[in-house]
Amino acid sequence: MTDTGLPFFRYFFVVEYDGSAFCGWQRQKNLLSVQACFEEAVGKATGQRQASYAAGRTDAGVHAAAQVVQVDFKEAFPIDRLKRGTNFYLKNKPLVVRDVFPVDTTQHARFSATARYYTYLLLSQSYPPVLSRGRLWWTPRVLCLEAMQKGANLFVGTHDFSALRAAECQAKSPVKTIDAFEVERAGPLFIFRVSARSFLHHQVRLMVGTLFKIGTGRHTPEHVKRLLKEKDKRHTGPLASSEGLYFTGVSYGNKIISSTPKMTF
Amino acid sequence: MTDTGLPFFRYFFVVEYDGSAFCGWQRQKNLLSVQACFEEAVGKATGQRQASYAAGRTDAGVHAAAQVVQVDFKEAFPIDRLKRGTNFYLKNKPLVVRDVFPVDTTQHARFSATARYYTYLLLSQSYPPVLSRGRLWWTPRVLCLEAMQKGANLFVGTHDFSALRAAECQAKSPVKTIDAFEVERAGPLFIFRVSARSFLHHQVRLMVGTLFKIGTGRHTPEHVKRLLKEKDKRHTGPLASSEGLYFTGVSYGNKIISSTPKMTF
Repeated sequence: MTDTGLPFFRYFFVVEYDGSAFCGWQRQKNLLSVQACFEEAVGKATGQRQASYAAGRTDAGVHAAAQVVQVDFKEAFPIDRLKRGTNFYLKNKPLVVRDVFPVDTTQHARFSATARYYTYLLLSQSYPPVLSRGRLWWTPRVLCLEAMQKGANLFVGTHDFSALRAAECQAKSPVKTIDAFEVERAGPLFIFRVSARSFLHHQVRLMVGTLFKIGTGRHTPEHVKRLLKEKDKRHTGPLASSEGLYFTGVSYGNKIISSTPKMTF
Repeated sequence: MTDTGLPFFRYFFVVEYDGSAFCGWQRQKNLLSVQACFEEAVGKATGQRQASYAAGRTDAGVHAAAQVVQVDFKEAFPIDRLKRGTNFYLKNKPLVVRDVFPVDTTQHARFSATARYYTYLLLSQSYPPVLSRGRLWWTPRVLCLEAMQKGANLFVGTHDFSALRAAECQAKSPVKTIDAFEVERAGPLFIFRVSARSFLHHQVRLMVGTLFKIGTGRHTPEHVKRLLKEKDKRHTGPLASSEGLYFTGVSYGNKIISSTPKMTF
C-alpha cells in the first residue's frame, strides 16, 4: 500500500546504457540524465509518469550492461507492453530495456540489494583502439597481471577506504566491504570484476587507477595496504576513466541480475 | 626499381577503422574515404605524399579489424616512426595503425593476397543493443544456427555467384571460390567467418542476408543450391547491414595478417 492507501504494482526494469551520452543516472537540471530519459519513455509507454529508483546511481560517463531500475504503477501492466512500449519511445536513444519483471512491493531495487557488480575494461596495447573507442580505458604501458591481482586481493574485505573516495562523496562512513575483486587477462585486455554491497563515490575507478600504477611497476601490491592504513589520498592512483567502467549487475539475496561486457579485437 | 629507375621501399601498414565514419576505402570526391584519411596522415608523418593500396577495398560502412595497406617510399623509415608518426596525425580519427612492417617489393598488398577474411556479427535478441550499436546487425528474430551452418557449407567451393553480387559489381567473372564459411554462436551473437581469394561486390553481405532468411526458417538450407544454380537475384536474401561486417585479414601464402572482432554483452 502507498501513502495514499491505494494498492500499487512494482516492476524492476533491467536496462543497458551508453554512459558517454549522459550526465550520470541521477536527474540534473539542464543535463541529460539516464533517469530523466528513462522516466520520460516509461511515462509515454504507460500513460503514468512515475519516479524511478536505480540499484546503482552511476556517475557521468559510466556505462551499464545491466542496471536495475524500480518503478511503481497504480495498475498492473503486461510485461511485454512495459518492455516493448518503453523501448519504442527509447528508439535511437543510448538507453534500452533488456528485461522487465514484477516484484513484491517489499523488495526495493536500491535498498534490498545485497551486492553490486562492476566490470572495468583496461586495454594495454601500443595503439589507441578505434572499434572499441569510448568503451574502455587505453594505455600503451605494459601491465603485470600478477601484481594487479595481488593488489586487488588486498582490497578484498572490510576496510576504511578514505583514500579511495571522491572529495564530494556523501557516504556517512568510509568503511566498506569488498566481496571479490578479480583481474583477468584476455589478450591485450585486462578485465577487472569487483563486487560489494555498496561502494563509495569513485571507489571503483580509484581502486582500478591504483592497480594500474601497481601494474606498471610504479608501486608494489603492498602499496594497497599502505593506502588503506595511512588514508592519504596523495598516494592513491589516478581516477581511471569513466569510459572503461560498467555497472554489470545486482544481487537481491539469492537472485542475481547481471550481464558482463566482454570485448576483444 | 620504379619506373624512374630509382630504388624504393615498400611497407605494409595494418590498420583498424570504424567504417561508419567513411564512404568506404576508396577515394571519392567530396566524401571522407579511409584512403584519403590514411594517405594524408602518412604524408604528414613522412614528408612524402604517396599512393596507397589496400588488400580489400571495403564498402561504405564496413569496418576493418585488420586491413593491409601498402605504401612505397623513396627512402627507408624506422618502423616506429611510420607507426607512431602516422597515429599522431590520426589522433581522434576513426582510423589507426596497428602495425607496420617492411616487405619485399615483389610482394603486393592487393595482388599477392591469396586469401581475404571477413567476419560478420549478427545479434539475435529481443531488444536493440546500445553498447554495441553500430558494430553489428541486430534482429529480434530467433535464428537456427544449424540451418545457417548447413547453408554456409553449400556456399563453400567454386560457384557462379551471379545471384550474390551488387548490380554495380565490376568483376569480369561471377565465379568465385569460397574457402571456408563458419557460423559460430556466442550467447545471442552469431559470428560468421568467411574466406576466399577474392569476393564480388556485396557478396559477403548478400550471403549473410541469405543465411539470415534460412536461419529464420523462411528458406531451407538447400535454398543456397537453388540460388547458385538459377542465378535469380529475386530469391537472394536481403543485403545484410554494413554495420555488422568486418574485414579481418589477409593471407600472403603462408603469412596470415589478421585480427578477429568479438563482442558479447
